[in-house]
Amino acid sequence: MSGIEHFKEEREKLAELMMSKADTGMKRFLNLDTKVYEDGALPAKQKEMLGLVASLVLRCDDCINYHLVQCHRMGVTEAEIIEAMDVGLIVGGSITIPHIRRAIRAWQELEAER
Amino acid sequence: MSGIEHFKEEREKLAELMMSKADTGMKRFLNLDTKVYEDGALPAKQKEMLGLVASLVLRCDDCINYHLVQCHRMGVTEAEIIEAMDVGLIVGGSITIPHIRRAIRAWQELEAER
Amino acid sequence: MSGIEHFKEEREKLAELMMSKADTGMKRFLNLDTKVYEDGALPAKQKEMLGLVASLVLRCDDCINYHLVQCHRMGVTEAEIIEAMDVGLIVGGSITIPHIRRAIRAWQELEAER
Amino acid sequence: MSGIEHFKEEREKLAELMMSKADTGMKRFLNLDTKVYEDGALPAKQKEMLGLVASLVLRCDDCINYHLVQCHRMGVTEAEIIEAMDVGLIVGGSITIPHIRRAIRAWQELEAER
Amino acid sequence: MSGIEHFKEEREKLAELMMSKADTGMKRFLNLDTKVYEDGALPAKQKEMLGLVASLVLRCDDCINYHLVQCHRMGVTEAEIIEAMDVGLIVGGSITIPHIRRAIRAWQELEAER
Amino acid sequence: MSGIEHFKEEREKLAELMMSKADTGMKRFLNLDTKVYEDGALPAKQKEMLGLVASLVLRCDDCINYHLVQCHRMGVTEAEIIEAMDVGLIVGGSITIPHIRRAIRAWQELEAER
Repeated sequence: MSGIEHFKEEREKLAELMMSKADTGMKRFLNLDTKVYEDGALPAKQKEMLGLVASLVLRCDDCINYHLVQCHRMGVTEAEIIEAMDVGLIVGGSITIPHIRRAIRAWQELEAER
Repeated sequence: MSGIEHFKEEREKLAELMMSKADTGMKRFLNLDTKVYEDGALPAKQKEMLGLVASLVLRCDDCINYHLVQCHRMGVTEAEIIEAMDVGLIVGGSITIPHIRRAIRAWQELEAER
Repeated sequence: MSGIEHFKEEREKLAELMMSKADTGMKRFLNLDTKVYEDGALPAKQKEMLGLVASLVLRCDDCINYHLVQCHRMGVTEAEIIEAMDVGLIVGGSITIPHIRRAIRAWQELEAER
Repeated sequence: MSGIEHFKEEREKLAELMMSKADTGMKRFLNLDTKVYEDGALPAKQKEMLGLVASLVLRCDDCINYHLVQCHRMGVTEAEIIEAMDVGLIVGGSITIPHIRRAIRAWQELEAER
Repeated sequence: MSGIEHFKEEREKLAELMMSKADTGMKRFLNLDTKVYEDGALPAKQKEMLGLVASLVLRCDDCINYHLVQCHRMGVTEAEIIEAMDVGLIVGGSITIPHIRRAIRAWQELEAER
Repeated sequence: MSGIEHFKEEREKLAELMMSKADTGMKRFLNLDTKVYEDGALPAKQKEMLGLVASLVLRCDDCINYHLVQCHRMGVTEAEIIEAMDVGLIVGGSITIPHIRRAIRAWQELEAER
């Protein structure tokens, strides 16, 4: 099983557990977290890239993986992903490099899945 | 062995190693780090929850686990833990979600240990 | 006009502007941000202290000021505030000191207002 | 003079000073920092929005202002800016709110300049 | 009065206020914060530069100013300061640039004081 | 295989993958990231320690490991490493402790390799 498949499986299991324990406040947050990425003045695809770069500069691998999966599903190209990560790299600095390395591997796995 | 048990074992081993290598400055910091959470104007239990939310918004799983163990030992209820994490979630944003998911699993393991 | 009074005035003005420009997603977030601090399994007072320490370790003066005002209104004592900030200081390190200095001044101003 | 005009003036003055003191390493970084936002697989406009959201979740007012100016110049609409900030708000949490408030004021000033 | 002189005056006043309100835990932290930078296996001068770069990547202007004053007092040269900031810039990314700009101005003021 | 050996192997593999996918902007950043640590007004050894402490306060284990390997290669002593980490610990707070623990173990493995 690839790393990104492992991530998806683990994420689903834990998201279910979280939902089973969440109170109203937490559920409303999770609901809002979904709505924010829907098509609007900006297309969903572009919002997922915003989420990706935000996750990269805040250096959260799980969040990066999640947005990579979404970007991949929405047809973002590899060249676009690399350029989005270039912005994250310049803004966030070399501290983001280990995350970019793992993101590129995850992207490769997503491409291989197709 | 559950994840939280693994954490406790690993933590003890590494804390010992750190202490064996620490100079005076480091030892004094570690000592102060213990004292700060003792009963005072605020009860220890409340301070552990402060430590938990601080660790959550700074997104350090080891620190979150440590404070969860302490909170559990001091009788914090699940509803209280969830509400404390609600504060961390709103302040720190969706980037804290993967940490909350893992924290809820750890809490479940702590409950199962009882 | 004291610093904390200036903060309250400026905050109100900008919060109004933000609300006038906010779309549904932003409004729902702001609404949730209020609800999270209400009495529940944890009393509102304790949640405000959680918000204070979260804001301190994330080093946001405006957020610190906001929670100080709330804590003051809810009868948190100076000794409790200092101990809550002790937790933030040990978790977040010396980088929080400039914020603690300003927070103590703001607290003094809040005490003087009474 | 509006806040955003003050920002632009101050920024120009300090950027000049920095350039006069910068060694080769610093100059190369600054140069790269410009190149990254140029049209490529992603249009410059979209990259500026990525820079905006990255700056928002990292909570740097100067960086936010800079990208707002660029976005404004490139024809990003207010609805698009609000939605981009919605993503930053959900990812980065309520700690970003003071920055969003100031960003909305800055945007208003940019609109007034037109 | 230059910016750095203003900083020194303000800092002294607030440090005094903080000390007057600090409990034992806070005082011990402040004491440790002084001791850590004393000559040891590493010379004080080198530790101040470590403190400077740590403050830069964590983006705290007050902390940067404090370490600049210390570095200046200990005879760090401008070329050394620039190279130390180059490390902070590459590690921390463009988000540190506004802080570097202000740090260079502060350094210039320190040089002018001599 | 020790943790640090595993890190080196994994890092090399992923660095290669990253280079194979990197566009010009990314390559220039990586190139600059190497140049910044070369001997200049400050010796390379001192710059590696700056990189180490920056990585510690930003809490990136991979970055910490990388700079530990470099420091070890350049003859930094254990006492110097501990004092550098003392600075990171006081600036960055207890949230850095889990990283320091792992860094001390990695250092021990590097010593054992000799």
